Amino acid sequence: MSDTKTRESTMSDATIRAAEVLKAHRASIDRLDAILVYTLGERFAHTQAVGKLKAEHDLPPSDPAREAQQIARLEELAKEAELDPDFAKKFLNFIIAEVIQHHRKHQEQGS
Amino acid sequence: MSDTKTRESTMSDATIRAAEVLKAHRASIDRLDAILVYTLGERFAHTQAVGKLKAEHDLPPSDPAREAQQIARLEELAKEAELDPDFAKKFLNFIIAEVIQHHRKHQEQGS
Repeated sequence: MSDTKTRESTMSDATIRAAEVLKAHRASIDRLDAILVYTLGERFAHTQAVGKLKAEHDLPPSDPAREAQQIARLEELAKEAELDPDFAKKFLNFIIAEVIQHHRKHQEQGS
Repeated sequence: MSDTKTRESTMSDATIRAAEVLKAHRASIDRLDAILVYTLGERFAHTQAVGKLKAEHDLPPSDPAREAQQIARLEELAKEAELDPDFAKKFLNFIIAEVIQHHRKHQEQGS
C-alpha cells in the first residue's frame, strides 16, 4: 500500500466513523423529540382540562403562587438533569405563554 | 337538615371535588414537566456531542437540510399527538436557538 493510499483510507475511515456517530446522535435526538411532542400533547390535555374546570368553578385563570412553585421546582429538576436552570425557566415561561393563549382562544370562542 | 345546610354542603361537595380534580391534574402536569426536563437534558447532551463532533471534523455548525427534515417530522408527530403543529414548530425553533447559543458559548470559550 502506498503512503498516499494509507493516508486517504485513514482519513476516509475517520470521516466514515464521524458520520456514523453523528447519525446515531441524530437518531437519538429524533426519538427524544417524539417523547417531547407526545409529552407536550399530554401536558396540554391536562392544562385544557384545568382551564375548563376553572371556568366552571369561577376560579381565576392564572395562579401566581402555583406558577412560582412550578418555577422553583423546575429549577431544582433542571440541576438534577444537568440542564441550564435559566433555560428551564425560559422553557416553562414559553409553555405557560402557550397555555394562556389556549385559554384566551377558548374564551373568545365562548366555549 | 335545613335547606340552607343542604345547599351549603352540596356547594362544598362540588368545590371539594373540583379541588381534588384540579390537584390530580396538577400532579400529572408536574410529572410530565419532570419528563420534559430530563428529556431536554438528554437531548442537549446529544446536541453538545454533535457540536463537538462537527468542530473536530470541520463540519458546518448549522445544517439547513437536517433542520427542514426535523421541522417536517415534528409537524407530523404533532398531528398524531394532537398538539398544535404551529406550536411544535415554534417549540423546535426555541430549542434550536438554545442549541446554537450553546455552540456559540462553546466556541467563545475556545473549547
